Amino acid sequence: MEKKTYSPGILQYIPFFYVIWSDDLVSASEINVVEKAIGQDASLSKDESFVLKSWLNTKNRPANDELKNWKHIVSNSDVKLVESNTYPLSTFSQKVVCNYFEECPFNDSLKHIEVNLGIQPNHYNHLFDVEVEHEITSNYYNASEIDEILKGEHAEVIDGFRNTLDNPIFRWDIHRNKEEFREVVLNQVKYLADKGYGALAYPKAYGGIEDMEGYAYMFENMMYVDGSLTIKFGVQFGLFGGSIQKLGTKKHHDEYLTETGKASLLGCFAMTETGHGSNVRGIKTTATYDKALDQIIIHTPGKNDNKEYIGNALHSKMASVFAQLIVDGKNEGVHAILVPVRNEKHELLSGITIEDNGYKLGLNGVDNGKIWFNQVAVPRENLLNKYGDIKEDGSYRSDIKNPNKRFFTMLGTLVGGRICVARAGLGGAKMALTVAIKHALKRRQFNDSIKVQEDLLMDYPTHQLRLTPLVASAYVYHVTLDKMMKDYCDESKPDKRIVETQVAGLKSIITWYANDTIQECREACGGKGYLIENRIADLKGDVDIFTTFEGDNTVLLLLAAKGVLSDFKAEFNSAGFSAVLKLLSSQLSDKLSTINPLYSNKVDKEHLYNPQFHKHAFDYRTRRLTYTLAKRIRSYIKKGMPSYQAFMKVQTHLIALGKAYAVELAYTTYSDFVDGMSEGKNKDLFKKLGTIHALYEIRKDSEWYLEQGYISGTKSKAIRQRVERLCTELRPHIGILVDGWGIPQSCMSAQIAE
Amino acid sequence: MEKKTYSPGILQYIPFFYVIWSDDLVSASEINVVEKAIGQDASLSKDESFVLKSWLNTKNRPANDELKNWKHIVSNSDVKLVESNTYPLSTFSQKVVCNYFEECPFNDSLKHIEVNLGIQPNHYNHLFDVEVEHEITSNYYNASEIDEILKGEHAEVIDGFRNTLDNPIFRWDIHRNKEEFREVVLNQVKYLADKGYGALAYPKAYGGIEDMEGYAYMFENMMYVDGSLTIKFGVQFGLFGGSIQKLGTKKHHDEYLTETGKASLLGCFAMTETGHGSNVRGIKTTATYDKALDQIIIHTPGKNDNKEYIGNALHSKMASVFAQLIVDGKNEGVHAILVPVRNEKHELLSGITIEDNGYKLGLNGVDNGKIWFNQVAVPRENLLNKYGDIKEDGSYRSDIKNPNKRFFTMLGTLVGGRICVARAGLGGAKMALTVAIKHALKRRQFNDSIKVQEDLLMDYPTHQLRLTPLVASAYVYHVTLDKMMKDYCDESKPDKRIVETQVAGLKSIITWYANDTIQECREACGGKGYLIENRIADLKGDVDIFTTFEGDNTVLLLLAAKGVLSDFKAEFNSAGFSAVLKLLSSQLSDKLSTINPLYSNKVDKEHLYNPQFHKHAFDYRTRRLTYTLAKRIRSYIKKGMPSYQAFMKVQTHLIALGKAYAVELAYTTYSDFVDGMSEGKNKDLFKKLGTIHALYEIRKDSEWYLEQGYISGTKSKAIRQRVERLCTELRPHIGILVDGWGIPQSCMSAQIAE
Repeated sequence: MEKKTYSPGILQYIPFFYVIWSDDLVSASEINVVEKAIGQDASLSKDESFVLKSWLNTKNRPANDELKNWKHIVSNSDVKLVESNTYPLSTFSQKVVCNYFEECPFNDSLKHIEVNLGIQPNHYNHLFDVEVEHEITSNYYNASEIDEILKGEHAEVIDGFRNTLDNPIFRWDIHRNKEEFREVVLNQVKYLADKGYGALAYPKAYGGIEDMEGYAYMFENMMYVDGSLTIKFGVQFGLFGGSIQKLGTKKHHDEYLTETGKASLLGCFAMTETGHGSNVRGIKTTATYDKALDQIIIHTPGKNDNKEYIGNALHSKMASVFAQLIVDGKNEGVHAILVPVRNEKHELLSGITIEDNGYKLGLNGVDNGKIWFNQVAVPRENLLNKYGDIKEDGSYRSDIKNPNKRFFTMLGTLVGGRICVARAGLGGAKMALTVAIKHALKRRQFNDSIKVQEDLLMDYPTHQLRLTPLVASAYVYHVTLDKMMKDYCDESKPDKRIVETQVAGLKSIITWYANDTIQECREACGGKGYLIENRIADLKGDVDIFTTFEGDNTVLLLLAAKGVLSDFKAEFNSAGFSAVLKLLSSQLSDKLSTINPLYSNKVDKEHLYNPQFHKHAFDYRTRRLTYTLAKRIRSYIKKGMPSYQAFMKVQTHLIALGKAYAVELAYTTYSDFVDGMSEGKNKDLFKKLGTIHALYEIRKDSEWYLEQGYISGTKSKAIRQRVERLCTELRPHIGILVDGWGIPQSCMSAQIAE
Repeated sequence: MEKKTYSPGILQYIPFFYVIWSDDLVSASEINVVEKAIGQDASLSKDESFVLKSWLNTKNRPANDELKNWKHIVSNSDVKLVESNTYPLSTFSQKVVCNYFEECPFNDSLKHIEVNLGIQPNHYNHLFDVEVEHEITSNYYNASEIDEILKGEHAEVIDGFRNTLDNPIFRWDIHRNKEEFREVVLNQVKYLADKGYGALAYPKAYGGIEDMEGYAYMFENMMYVDGSLTIKFGVQFGLFGGSIQKLGTKKHHDEYLTETGKASLLGCFAMTETGHGSNVRGIKTTATYDKALDQIIIHTPGKNDNKEYIGNALHSKMASVFAQLIVDGKNEGVHAILVPVRNEKHELLSGITIEDNGYKLGLNGVDNGKIWFNQVAVPRENLLNKYGDIKEDGSYRSDIKNPNKRFFTMLGTLVGGRICVARAGLGGAKMALTVAIKHALKRRQFNDSIKVQEDLLMDYPTHQLRLTPLVASAYVYHVTLDKMMKDYCDESKPDKRIVETQVAGLKSIITWYANDTIQECREACGGKGYLIENRIADLKGDVDIFTTFEGDNTVLLLLAAKGVLSDFKAEFNSAGFSAVLKLLSSQLSDKLSTINPLYSNKVDKEHLYNPQFHKHAFDYRTRRLTYTLAKRIRSYIKKGMPSYQAFMKVQTHLIALGKAYAVELAYTTYSDFVDGMSEGKNKDLFKKLGTIHALYEIRKDSEWYLEQGYISGTKSKAIRQRVERLCTELRPHIGILVDGWGIPQSCMSAQIAE
């Protein structure tokens, strides 16, 4: 190989050309940027321009020997690459020239290329054998600014709450004994109640500020303290208090709501039974009105009909009990009744049996228990009577005549809880990611034998790929859940059927995401992640059950799919399928246009990064799945198959639709949010996060997209490469991205994240 | 719709035709079976034959009204479908005819169709509105027979061991306090040692029977008792004892091995350091030979250079310490030295510091600790000197001149441990699946509103799909791990490089499989799965770390890929890549033939169920990934990129290759095993399990196969449908399939699995 010497004009471009050609991802438009910059570079002679442009021909790429020669020149220059320079590669190039020639002005054309191609030190710092002055984290973005964007209009409540958590009572510790743990958590709940947070979502008359949106935010932040606190808090104020607030009437509010918000009345929410988990309508506990006594008799009829997994069961004085209400011999369906369970001395009342549910995989600071009722009588007034009442004359009345509709209206008021669970799952994921990423920015493992220092975990491509898309998704879900809570609280839209469907889907995908993320973080931290002291282990155990409670994810996805199939017209949660079927027939025209081969083969960066492409892909999937599903069901029905069985046969298809719907919803919500941001680097960052998330989601289901011919094999590969590339691009900012979640320092107890 | 009446000859076929046409999966060859049976049915008139055959025309399928009419006739017959009949559908058809006509003989042609099409009650029991006498589990297969097949030649050891486990000392219980838990586990380990199981793999002279294969089986069975027992047992006898056995020489065996096998000498295996997990060669602990004293000085030089996560650390009297051996000022690389750590009174010896690692996500019955050495002197004889020794004259000598090779020869002797970890993971998965499936065969949830009883969880297609392929995979991995251990123990094959690569890949995919399976089972059991009493929660916490210890899965897959790339010629585990690179150049001819469109579109059952198809698919993937990987690396190198960086850039690709290799290996091993089985229904069953596993694995990576054009979209969909169908087919046998694993009744403590 003959060594070539270059003029300074050409030499300054050599590092750029080496970077461009050693990477396989240069697109036509990128080549164009370079070509233009060269054309406008006044410092170049005509000949130099010509030579440089000749190196841009993708049909006739520079030979490998040429590349080796470039590398040799650069490596021999002995110039140090300083990553913290504003334009590291341009500055580096300038210094290379300085090394060989006397004159070496900084060249703005190079800067232009560097900026427009988005070339970052971590793309090329390994390419040359020169000393690199690494920066572990770039300070280009600002964590506080990001935090402000995420907090939005809730900043005041959130900041106040975070400050409140900076109290020794919330210091994280290892608790192995459940009784001791529960005392700690009970005290934390009472402390927050004292500060007014228990009543936050209640009306002002009962000590609150009616801030349901702020209330949801607390769930994310409580997870930074502990999962048990989060759930016990939710049971006391959200489920027990929420049932009084939303299913009860003024007499109940006046008597119980203030005390509940202060945690001076502790209560539980007794819905689930051992024999009936997700199928609430099938619960067996009875509430029989005895006209002579003017009392309601609560009773557990059979062996598996006891209440189970009831949080707060061991600390409660009262239970909000869901039971089949029987009035005058007629079953009026499931209603909630307030049942005192313990006296002032905390002794069980007559007819009540409560047993500890024992140790669980996580959440051992929550006192879950089983409850049996043996002919327990309570006053008629204890019926939470907003949607159905027993009148003084002993007759039943309800404004909602259809028992189905009545039942689902009652359940619907509790949808807010699902948003809070998703929010808590998101908090768990953020916490685990923060620990794993802070660890990966400190921990070194293996190296090239010639280097003294081992490489940072975060500098491994596999490590970037396993964590970065999960960070991006946390941003997307954060924004989405904000919007959901806003819609849920929007009183100008009283029909909550759409929100219920949306939340059913989102709760599922977000709690699954949270579990996957925490597991990935555990593994990414190796043995350190397995130690309880580093927090991820506890998060894993606590968040696990989020996929099951407040609606099992699989069941919720089936409901969401049904909502989509019926265009949100059918009663949500309804077990029957006839309503859906009636609507299906009108939807059977396949409006999907065939996919143009040009489109399914389009692989340029501009297209792949365009939110229009992502939205189209998600929309296409939802519509296509809806269409094929409706077609299959109709075909079964036409052959005489009972509708229940027809739906059984398409269960996996329904679940795919439920997921697809939720994924689309999350992305479009996020995308709309980003559109509304003011222009600037933060907007660009959020856009990039959305792109990683979207491409990653498309990748996850690329088998489906390929099956449909929506994307070609080449496009599928290009998407994979783009995801990897984007992860590398965000590498310098990953520290700031997790700091932007504003997890209070007082909660960051993990040793490995210090 | 006009009601039609049919002759008895036609009527008897009606239920069959309804089943055939309401299902979308009739293949041409299946149609052919029916056509032939009709042709040979002497009871039919020519006209009847003609009518029946006309209903088999796929181009002109019977109209929906016709189907409805058939259904109506069948439903109105009021005949009960008895699933436990030998030929349920033929018998059912016969009874339908009896209902309308006087004569109704049993028809062997129908029986022929039923058998050859493999029509099973769970395919059609929902299709007619008739009473169904369900059988929860079929007794067609026999659990003991399956257990015998799986135990193979190890039946005696396994049966003996399982009986040993039926002792109150092994009764499962909840242990929250780590000190108490560790005492329980220590006693269990000592009990097994007393019974001779600790020494099982040791030579006869030291109390053993040299049965390494039986030893591996114990790991699966110990998991049925408890994860902590399994791991502590492995540390004491496999890691500590194994290091003496395999790295030491006769003097060490004579002095320590018998005592170790009896657990009267407790020891630990001190390899991992806080600062160095997977990168063993980078450990910092030093072992400096002092010639004047004729002693080796063990020392922990820096802050993060202490040993960490060392199992048995708090109970041990001695440690097998891995350290950089420095003789005469020269570093001879990592060696193991026996270092006494406590005296008879269990007090720490001078210079030794041991700290408890504290609570972990799981395995809290194992006493993991950190160990520091401060200039601890031990006799020269304590060097485990099989592969490297310090002679009496104070000079170092080794038969293996190359230090790299020496190091990896030492590590290689420990590969057996990886098989045991995979085996333990498999045991955990089997246990969780057994609990989840027994629960699903009891628990009912939701129903069609007209039915009295809710449906069994196991009868939901989603439930079948989430659990059945995992059951099938357990069979595949069971057989594969047997074979691996056999190869590992085969002294006629001293070069273990291939086995090391194989085990690296298999340990990764099997421990990941185990974690995914346990998680799926947790969710499939809902809230019940979350309770510690039902065992899955503990399994989850215990098995989690299997992906990290005995080699982090990601690191192992990189090693496996390197083994494949170098055609197993390069030194396994070697950190350098030059050896691989040298070999790569010779492999760059792409021997893969282009895929024929006929092949990529082939969707008939015979093809999809054919092991040749599965093997071809797996082989194609491994070879294709090898080829493209080699091409990418070479292209980077040619441009002058340092080889270390080139390998960094293809990390995700390497991992894909490592996985693909392991998946192929597992399937071909299993497939060979099935080929060797004697003909009969068990062989057919094992074949079917292999088919589900293979199709499920292809499905999991179908995005890759689609990208490559190896399968078409239609084929991908057909594979999905076949997996669902196979799950349904195995539904009646799922109970037997988990019973076939022979988990001792004494270990089945989960309440929900009773």
